[in-house]
Amino acid sequence: MSLLVVGSVAFDSVATPHGVRDDVLGGSASFFSVAASHFVGVRLVAVVGEDFPDEHVAMLREHGVDLAGLERSEGRTFRWAGRYHDDMNQRDTLSTDLGVFEGFDPKLPDGWDDTPFVFLGNIHPALQAKVLDQVKAPRLVACDTMNLWINTTPDELKRVIERVDVLAINDDEVQMVAQENNLVKAARKVRAMGPRWLIVKRGEYGALLFAEGRIFAVPAFPLEEVRDPTGAGDTFAGGFMGALAAAPRIDDATVRRSMVMGSVMASFCVEDFSLDRLKTLTRQDVDARFRQFKDLTSFDLD
Amino acid sequence: MSLLVVGSVAFDSVATPHGVRDDVLGGSASFFSVAASHFVGVRLVAVVGEDFPDEHVAMLREHGVDLAGLERSEGRTFRWAGRYHDDMNQRDTLSTDLGVFEGFDPKLPDGWDDTPFVFLGNIHPALQAKVLDQVKAPRLVACDTMNLWINTTPDELKRVIERVDVLAINDDEVQMVAQENNLVKAARKVRAMGPRWLIVKRGEYGALLFAEGRIFAVPAFPLEEVRDPTGAGDTFAGGFMGALAAAPRIDDATVRRSMVMGSVMASFCVEDFSLDRLKTLTRQDVDARFRQFKDLTSFDLD
Repeated sequence: MSLLVVGSVAFDSVATPHGVRDDVLGGSASFFSVAASHFVGVRLVAVVGEDFPDEHVAMLREHGVDLAGLERSEGRTFRWAGRYHDDMNQRDTLSTDLGVFEGFDPKLPDGWDDTPFVFLGNIHPALQAKVLDQVKAPRLVACDTMNLWINTTPDELKRVIERVDVLAINDDEVQMVAQENNLVKAARKVRAMGPRWLIVKRGEYGALLFAEGRIFAVPAFPLEEVRDPTGAGDTFAGGFMGALAAAPRIDDATVRRSMVMGSVMASFCVEDFSLDRLKTLTRQDVDARFRQFKDLTSFDLD
Repeated sequence: MSLLVVGSVAFDSVATPHGVRDDVLGGSASFFSVAASHFVGVRLVAVVGEDFPDEHVAMLREHGVDLAGLERSEGRTFRWAGRYHDDMNQRDTLSTDLGVFEGFDPKLPDGWDDTPFVFLGNIHPALQAKVLDQVKAPRLVACDTMNLWINTTPDELKRVIERVDVLAINDDEVQMVAQENNLVKAARKVRAMGPRWLIVKRGEYGALLFAEGRIFAVPAFPLEEVRDPTGAGDTFAGGFMGALAAAPRIDDATVRRSMVMGSVMASFCVEDFSLDRLKTLTRQDVDARFRQFKDLTSFDLD
């Protein structure tokens, strides 16, 4: 089973209470790909500049990520810089340099139009739609977005949301899309726009899955070391989509397990800067933490 | 099995996005008692003024709350007024009038010194200690506190924390007590001060239980109508202590179930103003929502 992702591949400069890193590998598609690669083959559609180093290409390849869709353009790779507060739920963006991302026009390599699982990372909804137009009859499409697109391109975004099976966004974004403060009511409004499943990401509090008539809550894993929260949401999505694409079928049980796997992968992501922890993970690490989630959440009815 | 609570019985004036109520029944001991009364007999130690109406006394009695420890003093009952923001995680205290609470000197009625379960509501730690001094050999003591006591009476508070089995406080208070931002590290520091169990209350995100070598996470129940969050934390504590006091033994399984029952009761509390929903609850309502928590949190390992 293969899984296509379109999104950003970037250089991040990050300062947290636990350290500073400059020009390390970042971007939604990077975090997503490496997280998902622990479960399925990943096909990456993104753009980088001439400054993108071979070591990152090699690392992605080692994780079985197919880079036929990774375009290399004249110019600089997308750069983001941010600083986290002592309370790492808060961060300030210090600078954004789109670089080659500004002219990004995603094209699927030959033979990728039959990819069964598709994740549209947080990019302009017109580009998300463009990718979706190039895939024929996918089994499951998920997408992410952000306040920028909710505010500036609401109509284009709405047309994408109508076409996806899963929308995975933050709690404040759900409230923004629905224009409704109560999360349960907001979730119903968003699901009525199209997606069968709505994943509400809540950072250190975990995530909620809204499905037809049912809600599933998964906590974030309580960690002693949270060094850098960057990429946690994309990593959650990568774990979720990877696990679901690898599942024998798509039903309530496999979607729930995939939610837990999303939280498992996100918990590794934040333990170190950039993809430093994600890229050294073994399947044993992943399975052990998955079992820990059972202990974290289980209780007997009597 | 009986359960003693000391805390405030008050008049609340509350404004939320869903309405306004003036001089309705409030106070930590009120919410706690009615929540716990669904599981065990409750003994209430508190003080009210001459203005406290018979209807509240009658309601508490109907819930099997023993009011022999409810002192009636000359003067006015404690009053609190607050206003919630559109985001109901935020609130401003508009006024506090201690009234008869200022001279509160809790005394246990004859025969209450053998109460096996004790909850020290959020009052001055010197008063909490005074109550604890009057109980001989309780099976389990829990307590709550707040930023005011953490900042103004840290030594007296520390001496209470050393003597309790369960500390149940908000996440920011855990960080304040421990002087540590990371919640897992902060929890370890707080547990090292004495309590075998630390309950971290997180409002709409639920609660965490830190025990020896294990953590248990329970979400808040996702609700379509949150009318008034006042008293949710005290109600959580009441559900937790009530369920635990009613359990055949105190072990990991019963403590976890009691955490869920805390969240069940808190979810009812916030559905209406004051104790309006709590006081109409039936055991069937409680058990049905308890089972819904199973569906909300369950997943299969494979």
